Amino acid sequence: MKIGKGVEWAVHACAVLALLPDEAALPGEALADFLDVPQPYLAKQLQALSRAGLVRAQRGAAGGYQLARAASAISLWDITAAVEGTAPSFRCTEIRRNGPCGATPAECRKPCDIAAAFARAEANYRAELAAVPLAQMVAGATRTASEDRKRLISQWIGEAVSLRS
Amino acid sequence: MKIGKGVEWAVHACAVLALLPDEAALPGEALADFLDVPQPYLAKQLQALSRAGLVRAQRGAAGGYQLARAASAISLWDITAAVEGTAPSFRCTEIRRNGPCGATPAECRKPCDIAAAFARAEANYRAELAAVPLAQMVAGATRTASEDRKRLISQWIGEAVSLRS
Repeated sequence: MKIGKGVEWAVHACAVLALLPDEAALPGEALADFLDVPQPYLAKQLQALSRAGLVRAQRGAAGGYQLARAASAISLWDITAAVEGTAPSFRCTEIRRNGPCGATPAECRKPCDIAAAFARAEANYRAELAAVPLAQMVAGATRTASEDRKRLISQWIGEAVSLRS
Repeated sequence: MKIGKGVEWAVHACAVLALLPDEAALPGEALADFLDVPQPYLAKQLQALSRAGLVRAQRGAAGGYQLARAASAISLWDITAAVEGTAPSFRCTEIRRNGPCGATPAECRKPCDIAAAFARAEANYRAELAAVPLAQMVAGATRTASEDRKRLISQWIGEAVSLRS
């Protein structure tokens, strides 16, 4: 089972955007610089987040990215779904219907137990991620940051953001 | 999040092997025929299952595959892990250490909250699959099969297996 690294990038990107002052927007290059990841690939994740309504791209000289809703209203599942999509990880190809002893349509009215078991486990996985708000991740990271680093981040953001009038 | 289709094949393959009479082994070609899937790719899954100690390959004229332990002692997670491996689906690359405001090693003694949240959700996903025995899948499929199809399967297996003396 694999989750693309874009999800990790996207969560961290959202966590940085959660630190911006109200109305401020952070240019994509600055965000890539903060995370030290290649900008073109990060731009792809930001586009996915924007399509999902999690971040908003502000155009213009004072433009950049900002969260489209409060960090308390964005979950790890929201971000994962935005980047990876919502297709089930286990795809049932109805193998039970195959071959010389394949099940008849009448025997297949209910989903295959195997697919159903994977679907149940995945639904719980998603629900668990849906119960983790971005705000909680940000609060945790802030708690473990030294006073020095908090000052550094504050200063870096102050210089990088473009406050919109 | 993606699971390779090999997992679906492997679970169905194990479910067929669970129907064999004691000591019987089913040739790989017959198994591929029963499931109507390409034999070379199924052979790859059977190899993985064999490496994980879930199936056993019997050599010789009366050779083929059989379960290496009872279907009640093989879980959906056992099969998934055998085919897909056990690497975590979310790989943390420690982005928090990156960039101009990266966390210091002292601040990173505990895993990143983001990675920890994904790891918790995945541990539960695995535990849930681990709680589903193959025997339960086989019983479910048998319950929904018509008497005609049960007879057909029985007959097909009788012709295909090689009973070992």
